Amino acid sequence: MIHPTPRVLVADLREHLGRTVSVCGWVNTLRLQRTMQFVLVRDHTGTAQVTHRRPGAADPLEERIEELTVESAVRVTGLVVENPAVRLGGLELVPERVELLNRAGTPLPVDEHTGLEHRLDWRFLDIRRRPAAQLLFAVQTTVEQALREFAYAEGCTEMHTPKLMGTASESGAEVFELGYFGRSAYLAQSPQFYKQMAIAAGIDRVFEIGPVFRAEPSFTSRHATEFTGVDLELAWTEDVEDVMAFEERMLAHTLARVAERHGAAIRERFGVEVTVPAVPFPRVTMARAQEILRAGGWDPEGKADLDPEGERALAAHVRRETGHEFVFVTHYPAGIRPFYHMRAAAEAGLTLSFDLLWKGLEITTGAQREHRYDVLLDQAAEKGMGTDSLRDYLNCFRYGCPPHGGLGMGLGRVLMVLLGLDSIREATFLFRGPNRLTP
Amino acid sequence: MIHPTPRVLVADLREHLGRTVSVCGWVNTLRLQRTMQFVLVRDHTGTAQVTHRRPGAADPLEERIEELTVESAVRVTGLVVENPAVRLGGLELVPERVELLNRAGTPLPVDEHTGLEHRLDWRFLDIRRRPAAQLLFAVQTTVEQALREFAYAEGCTEMHTPKLMGTASESGAEVFELGYFGRSAYLAQSPQFYKQMAIAAGIDRVFEIGPVFRAEPSFTSRHATEFTGVDLELAWTEDVEDVMAFEERMLAHTLARVAERHGAAIRERFGVEVTVPAVPFPRVTMARAQEILRAGGWDPEGKADLDPEGERALAAHVRRETGHEFVFVTHYPAGIRPFYHMRAAAEAGLTLSFDLLWKGLEITTGAQREHRYDVLLDQAAEKGMGTDSLRDYLNCFRYGCPPHGGLGMGLGRVLMVLLGLDSIREATFLFRGPNRLTP
Repeated sequence: MIHPTPRVLVADLREHLGRTVSVCGWVNTLRLQRTMQFVLVRDHTGTAQVTHRRPGAADPLEERIEELTVESAVRVTGLVVENPAVRLGGLELVPERVELLNRAGTPLPVDEHTGLEHRLDWRFLDIRRRPAAQLLFAVQTTVEQALREFAYAEGCTEMHTPKLMGTASESGAEVFELGYFGRSAYLAQSPQFYKQMAIAAGIDRVFEIGPVFRAEPSFTSRHATEFTGVDLELAWTEDVEDVMAFEERMLAHTLARVAERHGAAIRERFGVEVTVPAVPFPRVTMARAQEILRAGGWDPEGKADLDPEGERALAAHVRRETGHEFVFVTHYPAGIRPFYHMRAAAEAGLTLSFDLLWKGLEITTGAQREHRYDVLLDQAAEKGMGTDSLRDYLNCFRYGCPPHGGLGMGLGRVLMVLLGLDSIREATFLFRGPNRLTP
Repeated sequence: MIHPTPRVLVADLREHLGRTVSVCGWVNTLRLQRTMQFVLVRDHTGTAQVTHRRPGAADPLEERIEELTVESAVRVTGLVVENPAVRLGGLELVPERVELLNRAGTPLPVDEHTGLEHRLDWRFLDIRRRPAAQLLFAVQTTVEQALREFAYAEGCTEMHTPKLMGTASESGAEVFELGYFGRSAYLAQSPQFYKQMAIAAGIDRVFEIGPVFRAEPSFTSRHATEFTGVDLELAWTEDVEDVMAFEERMLAHTLARVAERHGAAIRERFGVEVTVPAVPFPRVTMARAQEILRAGGWDPEGKADLDPEGERALAAHVRRETGHEFVFVTHYPAGIRPFYHMRAAAEAGLTLSFDLLWKGLEITTGAQREHRYDVLLDQAAEKGMGTDSLRDYLNCFRYGCPPHGGLGMGLGRVLMVLLGLDSIREATFLFRGPNRLTP
């Protein structure tokens, strides 16, 4: 090895006072003065000051520092010394060697005034230079870790369902089609059918985090053509209530972990207070939700569903009444739900389904599934769906499929609400939309 | 709720002796005798005997049991009583109610003599009825959990890279193309470019488990058109050795977890002993590997790479010499490696790359990546690759991309070797190959 000095993270420098170490990171700021050269080097844990006094004679180190540019990748080897005058931890690094590992061209293609779309074009620089963006992915990791922790403890098995399908079963219009060895294949819009197949396969509780694909020409702040879905399916549920009870506990656990690990940083970087929600979350039927909204002057314009404005107004109402950020909207009319949602025994026009709104944004759809083959056939026929393309799915219900229910949650939407972001584009590493397939 | 008695898992029945509980599961076996009816009910934790004495007069319970079929989904509510004569835990359930929740048609489309392809057609029944298949997904969950546990502890951030790409960059021939709002998109063959983009974005260590897509018309026992990839990328590595050292520790940790949690069950169901490997794993250069193989009579037929037969022979040699199941093959010739693998400083014809073989099967490819923009351009040109479709990728190396290295591992292959399976088809929930897009 050419570099016998160990890499030390900026956050750990104080433990190495008086020793020679290497710091690896990016040039955050250069201050090249007449007698002094200051280089602020940033890694993912913090920023450290490198202080070099110009010797007044030919000095390779001085020359090397002059060559640096902002955002260049460098390795600086030097002595860690105490200096109370330095705001960055009261420490500085007196360099012995500065290695320019990858020079950043100048000027940089983005700066702090760059608009969103251009930032997305240069997403790697956008993320690298903004501590808030770095934090977002740390929070994402914690969210997933906490979701899995909860799911594993509750007996879930992690499954990977196929994204390539032989038929465009669930809803042909919004499905991507691809060439597949002389025929067509389709990208899964959700793991819905396959996670139900896992239930039929005797997997007691199914958990998956993976990509889902929607060929929707939507340009809103909350839609993407590819996003990360969190999917759950529970066997032997008696009612959709079992699914809601699972989800609210899972989210409470997850937000407790986030608050514990990142609460202070989220407050600092995003100005948002992470609240651990009380369980149970409020529940309101769709019929009651519409009454509440109409009383508040909202006009459903004949629609059976809530529009984004309605969702926000309902959430605000619930917030006022209960102080809660979450609300389950339940008992959606069958006409606006998929054929596989179970109908309410007491009222066949209603489904045993729910959406979960968080601060007015829908983050989850869930339901008790219809597991009775004959009823499922009827409900598919009622929606005008041909059973040929559903054959493999329907077969699952002919040989002992247990009752079950589940949900799908959008990870990007959860992060968007959690961190108070304006757009799903900011909550995604590399956003994909109808007009964006790059970088 | 109609069912006030709680669901109890079969494995927990003894804790409920003398109480009335519900067991939810499938009819595993029916023995309908003249005076007695025995129903063996199986859930994911075990099998319990339900014992009903025919009362000799009209009895709705007796009739209900007569209607059952094998693999029907049932909920049986009854008293848990001790009976030392019962082999299944010395317990039986004296039923008060038997609910047929979903009847299984007869005959079942698969039985214990069914061949692999037909079993795959009815994969949900294949998995439900074979305890070994159930175990496989429990092991998969443990493997992933352990990989993440290790990765998190080592500072990895979980990323979700896009599967939809705007250009067929890495290798056009094996890429699936799809229609995308009037243009073409392509499915990612690996997260390679995007995880490197995450490194350029300042994510220190990148971890991802997700689907990868290969449009290869391969019909071997180890290829699939869609499989689950485990991807890792580490910033600031000095050499590919750092990547290998990470991987061997990660696998040793993972196999220790598997041995601890499933060792006995894997021995019983698969006849395989799970060995926790010692670190470091043996390493052998490709040049040395070829010498070893030629000395053993293997004919490379002019190929610079190892064929499956060569991989098995090499692994057997290493096993004899060192007792180790794993071997890193290093320093592959540049001609058979992608353009982004870094070349050895001492010998430009060789790459700083490796494959990891486990019991003779390649489970991982890894490398130190070339992070110097000019060198990368030269290496792409040398491979005859146009830089237009690589533009977004190459831009990452113009603004301070740190040195880095990483690896990709096939989850299905790991499970295949771990459990001694003949085919990747058995190690996948729903296999996808050139001839298989269903169920």
